[in-house]
Amino acid sequence: MAKEITSRAEDYSQWYLDIVKKANLAENSAVRGCMVIKPYGFALWENMRDQLDRMFKETGHVNAYFPLFIPKSFLSREAEHVEGFAKECAVITHHRLMADPNGKGLVVDPEAKLEEELIVRPTSETIIWDTYRNWINSYRDLPLLINQWANVVRWEMRTRLFLRTAEFLWQEGHTAHATKEEAMEETLRILDIYTTFAEEYMAMPVIKGIKTPNERFAGADETFCIEAMMQDGKALQAGTSHFLGQNFAKAFDVTFLNENNQQELVWATSWGVSTRLIGGLIMTHSDDNGLVLPPKLAPTQVVIVPVPKPAGPIDEASAKIMKALKDRGITCKYDMDMKNRPGFKFAEHEMHGIPVRLAIGQRDLDNNQVEVARRDTGEKTSVPLDGVADYVQQLLGDIQNNLFQKAKTFQEQKTTRIDSFNDFKDLLDTESPGFISAHWDGTTETELEIKEQTKATIRCIPLDGEAEEGTCILTGKPSARRVLFAKAY
Amino acid sequence: MAKEITSRAEDYSQWYLDIVKKANLAENSAVRGCMVIKPYGFALWENMRDQLDRMFKETGHVNAYFPLFIPKSFLSREAEHVEGFAKECAVITHHRLMADPNGKGLVVDPEAKLEEELIVRPTSETIIWDTYRNWINSYRDLPLLINQWANVVRWEMRTRLFLRTAEFLWQEGHTAHATKEEAMEETLRILDIYTTFAEEYMAMPVIKGIKTPNERFAGADETFCIEAMMQDGKALQAGTSHFLGQNFAKAFDVTFLNENNQQELVWATSWGVSTRLIGGLIMTHSDDNGLVLPPKLAPTQVVIVPVPKPAGPIDEASAKIMKALKDRGITCKYDMDMKNRPGFKFAEHEMHGIPVRLAIGQRDLDNNQVEVARRDTGEKTSVPLDGVADYVQQLLGDIQNNLFQKAKTFQEQKTTRIDSFNDFKDLLDTESPGFISAHWDGTTETELEIKEQTKATIRCIPLDGEAEEGTCILTGKPSARRVLFAKAY
Repeated sequence: MAKEITSRAEDYSQWYLDIVKKANLAENSAVRGCMVIKPYGFALWENMRDQLDRMFKETGHVNAYFPLFIPKSFLSREAEHVEGFAKECAVITHHRLMADPNGKGLVVDPEAKLEEELIVRPTSETIIWDTYRNWINSYRDLPLLINQWANVVRWEMRTRLFLRTAEFLWQEGHTAHATKEEAMEETLRILDIYTTFAEEYMAMPVIKGIKTPNERFAGADETFCIEAMMQDGKALQAGTSHFLGQNFAKAFDVTFLNENNQQELVWATSWGVSTRLIGGLIMTHSDDNGLVLPPKLAPTQVVIVPVPKPAGPIDEASAKIMKALKDRGITCKYDMDMKNRPGFKFAEHEMHGIPVRLAIGQRDLDNNQVEVARRDTGEKTSVPLDGVADYVQQLLGDIQNNLFQKAKTFQEQKTTRIDSFNDFKDLLDTESPGFISAHWDGTTETELEIKEQTKATIRCIPLDGEAEEGTCILTGKPSARRVLFAKAY
Repeated sequence: MAKEITSRAEDYSQWYLDIVKKANLAENSAVRGCMVIKPYGFALWENMRDQLDRMFKETGHVNAYFPLFIPKSFLSREAEHVEGFAKECAVITHHRLMADPNGKGLVVDPEAKLEEELIVRPTSETIIWDTYRNWINSYRDLPLLINQWANVVRWEMRTRLFLRTAEFLWQEGHTAHATKEEAMEETLRILDIYTTFAEEYMAMPVIKGIKTPNERFAGADETFCIEAMMQDGKALQAGTSHFLGQNFAKAFDVTFLNENNQQELVWATSWGVSTRLIGGLIMTHSDDNGLVLPPKLAPTQVVIVPVPKPAGPIDEASAKIMKALKDRGITCKYDMDMKNRPGFKFAEHEMHGIPVRLAIGQRDLDNNQVEVARRDTGEKTSVPLDGVADYVQQLLGDIQNNLFQKAKTFQEQKTTRIDSFNDFKDLLDTESPGFISAHWDGTTETELEIKEQTKATIRCIPLDGEAEEGTCILTGKPSARRVLFAKAY
C-alpha cells in the first residue's frame, strides 16, 4: 500500500478525510450528507456505545425506543425548540409512490398526502414528553431515567464525515424528576459520565463547562458541555447535558401529584453524544501514518505479523501468544495474508491504528523472543516469548495513559490567557489558535460581535474556573471570570 | 394489581394486547402505526439482539451502518422490488419548515423542495448494492458478509404492536459472493442460525421451508423462511433468508474480476428478523396470568419476594442467595417495595413473565428453606437454603426445555394432514385451524384461489418434507409433495 495520506502540516482537513477513508472508517453515500459507516468504523462505534451503555445502566438508566417520526405540530409546542430545528429537518408529506402516468418511473402519489406532515426526529424531546404525560401521574413514578440509542436527522448544508452529517447515530437520554435539585444533579452526573468516558476510554482530555445563553440547546434552561482541543487548534464540542427546567413539561402538560397531593410540573434533563465522537477521537490522537486508537476502544488491540509469512513454527508460537492474550481479555488478530510483504502489512496495521504489533520470524523464534512495536510512539523492543502476554497487557495500559497524557499536555499548551483584544485577534489569525481564556462582559451582543470579527465562539464557561475580576476584552466592561473562546468544529 | 387481562378463550386478540400493555412491553405512539418500545420490552429486545449478534459474528459477519434514506430512483432499479415497496413508503419531499405566513404555526417551506424525493428505507438492498459497486472489484473482495441493526418503515394500513407496525427495528444482513453455490450456502446457514435462535433461545419451534413464488421477497430468486404456530392456531412468519441471485448486482451494476480475469456479476443474499419476534414470543408461551418468558431471554430470571416485606434477616438471606445466583451468571432482582402485599407482587412478577420467583418469610428462615415457584407451570416447592442457587440454575434449564417441549407438542398437535378440499375448508372454519399439510398443484393461480376462498396461505414448502405423490386439494392436478397452509399473522 502506498501511504497516500496527506500530512497534517500540508492540509489538515484533507489529512482527516484521508484517515477516515484509508482506515476504512466511513464514506459518503449516494444520499447527500448521509454517511456509510464501514465495518471497521462501526466496530469502533460498537465499543464506544457498549461502554457508554454500561455506564448509563450502572447509574440506573434503562433503554427504550421512541418513534422515528414527530408530528409537525409537536415541534411548535416549545417556542425555542422549534426555532432551533424547523429550519433543517426532513419532512415527510406522502406515504405512497405510483407509476408516473407519463411513463417516467415513479412519482409521488398525490392521493397519498398526509393530513399532517411528519418530521424525521432531529432530537426526541417532543415525542418523548408527549409520551411521558401518560407515564407520570404521581411522585412514585419519578424519577424516570430513560436513554435511547437512535439515528437522527438534521439537514446540515455543509457536512463532513462523522463531524457533521445529515443523519447520525447517537444516544439521547431523557429523564424526568420531581424536583429542580434532582434534575440538576442528574444533568451533572451525566456530564461526569461523559467526562470519564472521554478521558478514561477515548484518552481525550476535556474541559467541563456551561454554555452561554446564545449557545444553549433550543429549549434548555442551561446547557453543560465537554469541549476538547483538536490537533489543529480548533475546539470540538464532544457532548452536552441539558437542564431543561419545566419547559417541556409545560409544553406537553406533564404534571405529577407530589407527596402533599398537589399537582406540579415535572423537571427534565436531556443529554447526548454521537458518532461525532469518532471524529474527535481521530483528531485527538492520529498522526501522519494513519489512525491511532486508544487500546480501551480499539476493535483489535494486538496484531501478530509472521515474518516473512505464515509458516508452521511461527503459526504455533503465535497461536500460543494469542491464547495467552485472549485469556487476559485482549483482542488479537493473526495476519494470515500470504500475498503481501511484512512492510506492507505493518503500514496497513499502522493505518488502522492497532495499538500493538508483534512481529515473529524464524530468527526471533531461535532467540526465543518476539518484536513488539507500539503504535503511539513507534518504538520497537524485543521481548522474551515467555513473558510476552504480560508485557503486552502492561504495554496496552501504558499506551492508554501515554495517549491521554500527550493530549492533556497538548491541550494545556494550546490554552492561552489573553487580556487584550489585539492579542486575541492576533492569536486567532494564526494557524492553530487553541483555547483562549479571556474575560467577557456576559452579554450575547458582545459574544456575537466577537464571533463576527474573529470567528471564535465561547466554547464554555469552565466549571472549574476560578472567580477573577477583570474587564471584557472587547468592551472593557467588568467581568467576574474568564471564559473559554476558540474556533470550533 | 387487579388482573385485568382478558382470557385467551374470551378474546385472543385482546388478550395479546392486554399482555403487551400490562407487562409494560410497548404502546402505540402519537404517530400513526409507530410504537413506543417501553424499557421492559426493550430489555427483552436487547437480549434477543445481543444473542443474534453473537451468532452472526461467530459465523464471520460484521456490522455496518447504511443511510436511513433511499433516493426514489434507486427503488425503480429492480423491477420486482419497486412493486413490493413503492405502495407503502414514507416519502420525504422537503428539508425545511417555516412559519405560516397566515400565522398558523408551521408549514412546509415550498422553497425547500428536494430535487429528488427520498424514501425512508423499507429495507436496504438498493442503497447497499449501490455502495457495494465501489467496494467490490475482484474475487479477493468477496465474500462480503455484512449485517446492520436498524429501523425501517413500511406504511402499513392495519397495524398491531410488534406484529405489524409502520416503523420497526430489525437486523438486515446483506452478503455478496463470487458463486451461486456460496450464496445459497449462506442463505441456508442463516436459516439455520434463525432456527437455532428461535428454538434454543425463544423456545419457539419452527418449520423451515421455502416460500412459493407468490410469497417471495420482492427481488429474490428464492425466499426461505421459518414459520411458527401461535396458540390461536395461526401461523407467524418469524424470519426470512433470501437468495437474491444476481438481481441486485444487475440492477446496480456490481461486477467482479474472477480468478480467470473475467468480469462476472456478484451473487447476493439478504436476511432479516425484527421486533415482530417479540410478538411471536408472547403468543407462543404466555397464558391468562400474563407474559411467560424463556429463561435464556428474560431480562430478570429470578425475583426474590420477602414475605410479608423486607426485614433484616430476610434481607440478609436474600443477599446471600442473590450473590450465589449472580456468581452463576443468573440475573436476579430483590423486591424491596414496602407498600404492596406479597400477593400483589406475585401477580406483578407473573404478569412480567419472570421465570422463577423465590419467596422468603421468617418461618422459611426458621426452617432453613425458601419457597421456589416456577412461572411456566405455577408449581411451588420448598428448597433448603443451602442448595437453592444450584436448584434454581437447574430449574431455569428445565423451564427453558419445558417451554420448548410444550410448544413443540402443541405445534405437532396443530398440524393436520388433509386430502379433500371440503375437510380443508371445514378445518379453516374452526376457531383454531393450525397448520394444514396438503397437496397443491404448484401454480400461483390455485394458491390465490385457495386464499380467496379460505384466507389460508401457503406458509412454506417444508425443507424436511418428503416427496409424496398426490393430487392438489383444489384442482385435483398431480402434486409431488405436501405444502403447509395456514391462516397467518
